[in-house]
Amino acid sequence: MSVTPSQTPVAPSERELRALDAHWRAANYLAVGQIYLMANPLLREPLRAEHIKPRLLGHWGTSPGLNLVHTHLNRVVKARDLDAICVWGPGHGGPAVLANSWLEGSYSQTYPDVTRDEAGMARLFRQFSFPGGVPSHVAPETPGSIHEGGELGYALSHSYGAAFDNPGLLVACVIGDGEAETGPLAASWHGNKFLDPVHDGAVLPILHLNGYKIANPTVLARLPEDELDALLRGYGHRPLYVGGDDPMTVHRAMAEAMDTALDLIAAIQRDARTDGSTGRPAWPVIVLRTPKGWTGPAEVDGLPVEGTWRAHQVPLDQVRDDPSHLAQLEAWLRSYRPEELFDDHGRPTPEVLAWVPAGDRRLGANPHANGGLLLRDLPLPPLERFAVPVDKPGATLHEPTRALGDLLEQVMADTADRRDFRLVGPDETASNRLQSVYAATGKAWQAGTLPVDENLTPDGRVLEILSEHTCQGWLEGYLLTGRHGLFSCYEAFVHIVDSMVNQHIKWLRTTRTLPWRAPIASLNYLLTSHVWRQDHNGFSHQDPGFVDHVLNKSPEAVRVYFPPDTNTLLATADHVLRSRDYVNVVVAGKQPCADWLTLDQARVHCARGAGIWEWAGTEDGSREPDVVLACAGDVPTQEVLAAADLIRRHLPDLRVRVVNVVDLARLMPAEEHPHGMPDAEFDALFTRDRPVVFAYHGYPWLIHRLAYRRAVHPHLHVRGYKESGTTTTPFDMVVRNDLDRYRLVMDVIDRTPGLAARAAAVRQEMADQRTRHHDWIREHGTDLPEVADWSWGS
Amino acid sequence: MSVTPSQTPVAPSERELRALDAHWRAANYLAVGQIYLMANPLLREPLRAEHIKPRLLGHWGTSPGLNLVHTHLNRVVKARDLDAICVWGPGHGGPAVLANSWLEGSYSQTYPDVTRDEAGMARLFRQFSFPGGVPSHVAPETPGSIHEGGELGYALSHSYGAAFDNPGLLVACVIGDGEAETGPLAASWHGNKFLDPVHDGAVLPILHLNGYKIANPTVLARLPEDELDALLRGYGHRPLYVGGDDPMTVHRAMAEAMDTALDLIAAIQRDARTDGSTGRPAWPVIVLRTPKGWTGPAEVDGLPVEGTWRAHQVPLDQVRDDPSHLAQLEAWLRSYRPEELFDDHGRPTPEVLAWVPAGDRRLGANPHANGGLLLRDLPLPPLERFAVPVDKPGATLHEPTRALGDLLEQVMADTADRRDFRLVGPDETASNRLQSVYAATGKAWQAGTLPVDENLTPDGRVLEILSEHTCQGWLEGYLLTGRHGLFSCYEAFVHIVDSMVNQHIKWLRTTRTLPWRAPIASLNYLLTSHVWRQDHNGFSHQDPGFVDHVLNKSPEAVRVYFPPDTNTLLATADHVLRSRDYVNVVVAGKQPCADWLTLDQARVHCARGAGIWEWAGTEDGSREPDVVLACAGDVPTQEVLAAADLIRRHLPDLRVRVVNVVDLARLMPAEEHPHGMPDAEFDALFTRDRPVVFAYHGYPWLIHRLAYRRAVHPHLHVRGYKESGTTTTPFDMVVRNDLDRYRLVMDVIDRTPGLAARAAAVRQEMADQRTRHHDWIREHGTDLPEVADWSWGS
Repeated sequence: MSVTPSQTPVAPSERELRALDAHWRAANYLAVGQIYLMANPLLREPLRAEHIKPRLLGHWGTSPGLNLVHTHLNRVVKARDLDAICVWGPGHGGPAVLANSWLEGSYSQTYPDVTRDEAGMARLFRQFSFPGGVPSHVAPETPGSIHEGGELGYALSHSYGAAFDNPGLLVACVIGDGEAETGPLAASWHGNKFLDPVHDGAVLPILHLNGYKIANPTVLARLPEDELDALLRGYGHRPLYVGGDDPMTVHRAMAEAMDTALDLIAAIQRDARTDGSTGRPAWPVIVLRTPKGWTGPAEVDGLPVEGTWRAHQVPLDQVRDDPSHLAQLEAWLRSYRPEELFDDHGRPTPEVLAWVPAGDRRLGANPHANGGLLLRDLPLPPLERFAVPVDKPGATLHEPTRALGDLLEQVMADTADRRDFRLVGPDETASNRLQSVYAATGKAWQAGTLPVDENLTPDGRVLEILSEHTCQGWLEGYLLTGRHGLFSCYEAFVHIVDSMVNQHIKWLRTTRTLPWRAPIASLNYLLTSHVWRQDHNGFSHQDPGFVDHVLNKSPEAVRVYFPPDTNTLLATADHVLRSRDYVNVVVAGKQPCADWLTLDQARVHCARGAGIWEWAGTEDGSREPDVVLACAGDVPTQEVLAAADLIRRHLPDLRVRVVNVVDLARLMPAEEHPHGMPDAEFDALFTRDRPVVFAYHGYPWLIHRLAYRRAVHPHLHVRGYKESGTTTTPFDMVVRNDLDRYRLVMDVIDRTPGLAARAAAVRQEMADQRTRHHDWIREHGTDLPEVADWSWGS
Repeated sequence: MSVTPSQTPVAPSERELRALDAHWRAANYLAVGQIYLMANPLLREPLRAEHIKPRLLGHWGTSPGLNLVHTHLNRVVKARDLDAICVWGPGHGGPAVLANSWLEGSYSQTYPDVTRDEAGMARLFRQFSFPGGVPSHVAPETPGSIHEGGELGYALSHSYGAAFDNPGLLVACVIGDGEAETGPLAASWHGNKFLDPVHDGAVLPILHLNGYKIANPTVLARLPEDELDALLRGYGHRPLYVGGDDPMTVHRAMAEAMDTALDLIAAIQRDARTDGSTGRPAWPVIVLRTPKGWTGPAEVDGLPVEGTWRAHQVPLDQVRDDPSHLAQLEAWLRSYRPEELFDDHGRPTPEVLAWVPAGDRRLGANPHANGGLLLRDLPLPPLERFAVPVDKPGATLHEPTRALGDLLEQVMADTADRRDFRLVGPDETASNRLQSVYAATGKAWQAGTLPVDENLTPDGRVLEILSEHTCQGWLEGYLLTGRHGLFSCYEAFVHIVDSMVNQHIKWLRTTRTLPWRAPIASLNYLLTSHVWRQDHNGFSHQDPGFVDHVLNKSPEAVRVYFPPDTNTLLATADHVLRSRDYVNVVVAGKQPCADWLTLDQARVHCARGAGIWEWAGTEDGSREPDVVLACAGDVPTQEVLAAADLIRRHLPDLRVRVVNVVDLARLMPAEEHPHGMPDAEFDALFTRDRPVVFAYHGYPWLIHRLAYRRAVHPHLHVRGYKESGTTTTPFDMVVRNDLDRYRLVMDVIDRTPGLAARAAAVRQEMADQRTRHHDWIREHGTDLPEVADWSWGS
């Protein structure tokens, strides 16, 4: 199904334009009402101070523009029976989107207590930005939204994400000229180089130039027209311009632009789908230039407001105290002629609703904007087909992410028809050794190709662009509309999307409390090319702190995994790809890594999240160990095992327990995270009073932060990355950060009561080994053979 | 002084072009040598496996392009006696920039052991990407660099930052076509709307389209030519194109493009400076289209390499094991005819050096790229002029950032001629209440203006663009070239630059170890509009985690301050603006806040970083207190003081100590942070065994992470933000997060041994107050008057 029927609808008549204007006025009235009124919603009596909210909070400036777009989207959705959603980039214009949802009835359908009548209008007004009410932004609570719009920059990448693999969907996207200055938005214009006119839907960007941000003009609004036109054409778009401040003129122009845009989209899709056209089309973009705070107060206290930055939030802010402000507000509200827009019961009149679509076609009711409703379980193949055989621990090596790539290849193959799984990454799929997927699907690419290119196809479901922001935005949009995916990223550079993941977690935290929001697939990160193996790139590419960042957020929505080998990575991937409403962070290496566990062992270990590796320790079952060696992460696990090996040989009577942690939240108290261990379980693993030497993948104090309440905490000694990095060998990296096997043995000796004197010679030997290493690598440029070739039990 | 003399130099002769080519070949030879060779640098004997490094690490693909740009920059710098630096966006092309520095002699000047002869060449080669050697990227260790280029996206914003207020400087900026896909880079093209041709220098972007990233073609390289041209014109530039794969043709075209670009720049500056032209000029941009890995192996093992993504890193990777690879490498190296380029001593020949500038004009020796050399102390006025009078604590209210704005106004006024201080922010200077600065300077703005606009001036030194990335990049570039500045940002959205501040801290950590790098001014953040006062915006605008992020980084370079009132903010600002080589994070509110300390008290308190507020507690000096109430942050301080007030009235015999922490790192152990307190000092403040109820501005576990080693830690109970937010009242925010005064009193009762029974009625009253609050705000939409109007001692 295409976005639009091929016949061009007739342009709206004057009467129809008046109906559009009535809808727009109604939405504007409702937006102002939400910002100001606690009572007297229909102005049945003269406005008095006590009708006014005590705290005036909200963003008026963008609202009339959003209302205009919604009004005209209604028209084309209804006229063409479109399956459409809209991403409202200026999401702080919450009053507008709420107003439209209330008008079309989707609000009352979602929240039955806010009825579409006078009582409901009163509730709608009062609840807005009111304690216990609804947020001032387009939020998860807003029907029809997949986008918060508080942190600007992601509207267009969310829109492309929603459109991928949704060939019947139109995604309109309002981009404010403030948002357009951000980096993520600027990058996301190039999404059209990745959108397949055959298998994907359409994105219709609507660049809203209202001229001002909070306190400044916007850059794009002040470009000469030819420069703006060149810019948009340079982005690969065909611009359509609408502008003015006379409502009926703008309505007519906007209706015409919408029709032109949708005709162009229909033609593009027909060419590609029916006529087999290839090549990248020039998709339309609408440029809408209207005054900020349009139809609001022209002047307040002698200063211009409408059409300036002063209209950004609350244009009249002394309404309760200043009678002239109050009068001005009343005149403003009455300028919309509410008596023509709402009937005696406060219901919108038929004229207002003339262009409002019905049922699921309403923008506030389209199931794509509540994507969990459309979500199907991902077909995941049996892991046995990808698991590596492990006859004994540590005897063989595999590249964990390569095995994961084989699994993903199968997922790609099994979703070839459904097209509901995407792999995204900033030009690193192959670098991260996931390239097996290319046997099942290509990399999406609509720009030109050359004979030398590999794996580029218009309909590929791997998305690669050198912009972590764009990758993240695409994947979020894809997941929020009910599909599945995985983001593979260099560990250090995932910090680029710290703020985006914040917002996504906040979204999930809120939707989890909304029964009408169906759960969506989790946002899964594979962080690889990690801190310990950035041999090519050095210090700038070493940062394991994303985990710290994520674990500050709502525990119900975040999970962090450190699979130590290939089979545990497979088991973890299987788990996270089945999960819902989480942000899952999986940290795993791409370099050859010892295989520790069979698939069955891996499944059990991952399900437990942490466990004792009996085969690695030297415990005497009858008593508690002398010391616990704990680890989380592939490289720390290797060093802990090597340390255990050294202890076994050098201090054979020391009772050592080896504990491996896959699921980091297991370390947290049970009351602080759903995966947190009860104290009894934690104590059974780590003891209450034995020294614990913990080798951790990231910043060591994170482990303290998670475990500070545990009985054993005073005896917990953590090693990890402490920002000591450069271009050097793998083993030198762990030595520089005191995470190496020799240092761990020294830690054990230093921390185990009574051991220091007895093990002084061993300790000296360990220190000597570190010196020998240091000298060797500076001489030879490689790790000592005994380190490079070390394997467990050899 | 202008960037260029007005007379147009003559185009280079064929002989001169041959000299340029010789330089380029020499640089290419040295780049390959660094990647591959440990010995036999001049190929005096046939190449053998043992001459090859055991680990081949580095990025060849971009190197020939960077070498070409450097070669031609040398020419124009010398011909026109330019004061110029270059920002190498593809900073992973370290071999190229190192090669050029060695050729021009700036490398040996900086590192005398790497001489400009055969022995030095051998060292240059061996040290590259070698343990104990130099990183593979253009790094802080690289002479002439202000830009690491590992995390892509910031080249152009760094360049604009360097050019601001440097009217005599040319900043060339190589932008790779990979980097061009990132959001931060895409946004930074609009820097030309903020560059004043009169008071600022020139930025010359050189967009290098080598066609491929790690594994994919690049978007910009695959645009049709007219689309790319439209894009660059849309960015406001005048494009000049250079392309090809025949070296002499490209040399000629590049020399011509460089001359044209510099003539255009000279004309623009002359028009603006001499003729008084206003209006934004179309600055030139050079588009350089050459093959990736140009002059490297065309094919390896039957696959195309030159001109493809396969040339990205090490084109021949089996050189030690595969004789055919070894032979191919030798042929490659000899193709540059090293015998023509280096004399018998391995020194570059006169022909190679014909176009190399001398002294400080060399790109590797220009002092602007070692900005600390040019740094002058900022003139800071006496704080007395801005301090608020405090007769008794808590009796008056002021907006802290407004007072800071007054201070910044004076700094702006006092630097009006020097022009070495900038205030940057994403459209929030006024929102953050710093608008007094506009009395001293305007906001930089070269785009069009309208009569309604305020404070926009071409030469303004406030920089506002709705892109945190651009703000950060500009400020970094400005500081790195030896100037001062402050970044004011909403607290939640500073996470947008998490990864950028990572890289800047890494830079500072490294430069602190390099004696030749002179210290630069600190990067100062003012984080305001913070989590507790985002009344307009709600949950998406609430995130105090930037502090956690920064405190994971190198302690020698990071400082975090929570001034609790106006005078402490002034004292803190004075301190951070004088400091060097730090990232300072200052978190302070913009809303009216009680004045606690006089300026003198504030100075002492800030110098100590943490201290007992005797006047607020009820200690009996002869004994330790029963309980410690600690606080960090303005709102937590207010709640702790209110709790102390409640305790004073309800539990008059309880001995309470109030401790306020301004400098958060004081909580850390002395051995972990330069500001960390010795245990004795910590214990004297917080006791060793009394309950400590700590009200903290951010995520509570950060305090545990900092203080877990302290004796009192088992008795430490922290309240803070726990991701419970929405659009609501200020007091409701603290109640939702259990940081409110009533909860703190309940905590004191619950945690103080022996108090529970005695204070049961008080505890119940506190709980009742919380309920009353909850009901009141849902009814009235405002805080209870007794909370809203509360003041200390009233």
